[in-house]
Amino acid sequence: MKLLRVGPAGAERPALLDQDGTLRDLSALVSDIDGGLLADASALDRIRAAAGAGVLPALDATGLRIGPPVGRIGKVVCIGLNYHDHAAETGAATPAEPVVFLKAPDTVVGPDDTVLVPRGSVKTDWEVELAVVIGRTARYLETDEEALAHVAGYAVAHDVSEREFQIERGGTWDKGKNCETFNPLGPWLVTADEVADPQALSLKLWVNGELRQNGSTADQIFKVAEVVRYLSHFMTLYPGDVINTGTPAGVAMGQPEPKPYLRPGDVVELEVEGLGRQRQELKSA
Amino acid sequence: MKLLRVGPAGAERPALLDQDGTLRDLSALVSDIDGGLLADASALDRIRAAAGAGVLPALDATGLRIGPPVGRIGKVVCIGLNYHDHAAETGAATPAEPVVFLKAPDTVVGPDDTVLVPRGSVKTDWEVELAVVIGRTARYLETDEEALAHVAGYAVAHDVSEREFQIERGGTWDKGKNCETFNPLGPWLVTADEVADPQALSLKLWVNGELRQNGSTADQIFKVAEVVRYLSHFMTLYPGDVINTGTPAGVAMGQPEPKPYLRPGDVVELEVEGLGRQRQELKSA
Repeated sequence: MKLLRVGPAGAERPALLDQDGTLRDLSALVSDIDGGLLADASALDRIRAAAGAGVLPALDATGLRIGPPVGRIGKVVCIGLNYHDHAAETGAATPAEPVVFLKAPDTVVGPDDTVLVPRGSVKTDWEVELAVVIGRTARYLETDEEALAHVAGYAVAHDVSEREFQIERGGTWDKGKNCETFNPLGPWLVTADEVADPQALSLKLWVNGELRQNGSTADQIFKVAEVVRYLSHFMTLYPGDVINTGTPAGVAMGQPEPKPYLRPGDVVELEVEGLGRQRQELKSA
Repeated sequence: MKLLRVGPAGAERPALLDQDGTLRDLSALVSDIDGGLLADASALDRIRAAAGAGVLPALDATGLRIGPPVGRIGKVVCIGLNYHDHAAETGAATPAEPVVFLKAPDTVVGPDDTVLVPRGSVKTDWEVELAVVIGRTARYLETDEEALAHVAGYAVAHDVSEREFQIERGGTWDKGKNCETFNPLGPWLVTADEVADPQALSLKLWVNGELRQNGSTADQIFKVAEVVRYLSHFMTLYPGDVINTGTPAGVAMGQPEPKPYLRPGDVVELEVEGLGRQRQELKSA
């Protein structure tokens, strides 16, 4: 299923995009698409049955904003340098273990919402990513199979990054990863049963129409299952938590000088195979 | 005021500790102590008036668990190496700018809850800290006065840290900061009007009765006001967000070999002047 949340920011309602591309209202069945729903197999079954029976009311998509596909996100865990080609372009060695950092859930916005270039920023950069959404509480998982059984689904994430703040301002990366609007997510949460192989998805990102990233999750150093299993030994993962699994090559930081960092007025579009497409216009904060 | 939340984990109710040390029930006035309340000056005034009028019902504190004093925390921002003596004991240079990292809000537990030593951990360490709780949305603040006006209050935080996970497992610090139960908070949120000078508070921590940390916020490299102002240029701070402002010298990592890292059965007690005291027993995860 393709689950999503539509409506004004902070007041989204749950919806489903059906096989015919019709938007269906889920408000009568569930209060939100969130960790509570994702952990509730019977509620998901009810949605699936209602969708199959064709009894869900259609929604007029005209002018309707799409929000992030998961509400009340508890944490966003990110894996850095997780593609061979991206690690190479940044000049970093291939990590021996996953590189882990966090983004604040309040950085998450809808897939087509405005992205703000922070004040004083001259190195705002793009990163298309495969996001994993957790469906079951995960602690100390042992096998890859077990790890994948804890995944509710997948979505497109844009891990917007300010490279000066991230790298040149001292300490860890967090200053360049947590600016307001820096994590567009969606449009859909595609449930795991509809993603045959999370390691065979193409990822693409365009800036002002020019293709800048064109990778595949096949190039991930640490696969989705390994990432979920690994993380569960350092933190507890809860339903509704999001994992951004890293970006392939092609970011602005990896380009020759003058590097084409994002400026107000730029338009970024990105997609992950089968998971939909995002489009953001950049504006000044 | 000393605001707190009491009751079973996940079902705490709002309370107040009055001047006489009596616990008072706030359930009739507010639904929770959270960002919504902290941003609502009139609601806080109503609590203050009711407390002054002596009309709040007393609560029997016997056997009552104290939860974290803030519900629905959006993010926990931490400042690393923020005391001169602690930076020195770790061998790090004094930072030129605040070192920033995040803890997931799901690591926050009550002040006397069990702390879990992660599986495979041999370097679980303690850190007593002054926590700042945000009361107003903060973006691009310019002055220290403005920064302090965005602070709702203060609390004791224990920034539990696993040093091998933090430092020896590759990448940023997050793997050693986000283990389950790694952020006891409380017992109280003391409103900012009752903390005359946040830079003149003693901080103490004992392990099994032995005093291990004994510092003062006067030794902070970046003061509370500077920290809030600085952070607001890299991220938006929202009501209910928590900032752990760093720890003074005396952590296990800073001791001679064999370093006295925490083990199951150990008891940690900590306090910040005027903000109350925590006590945790360590157990195996």
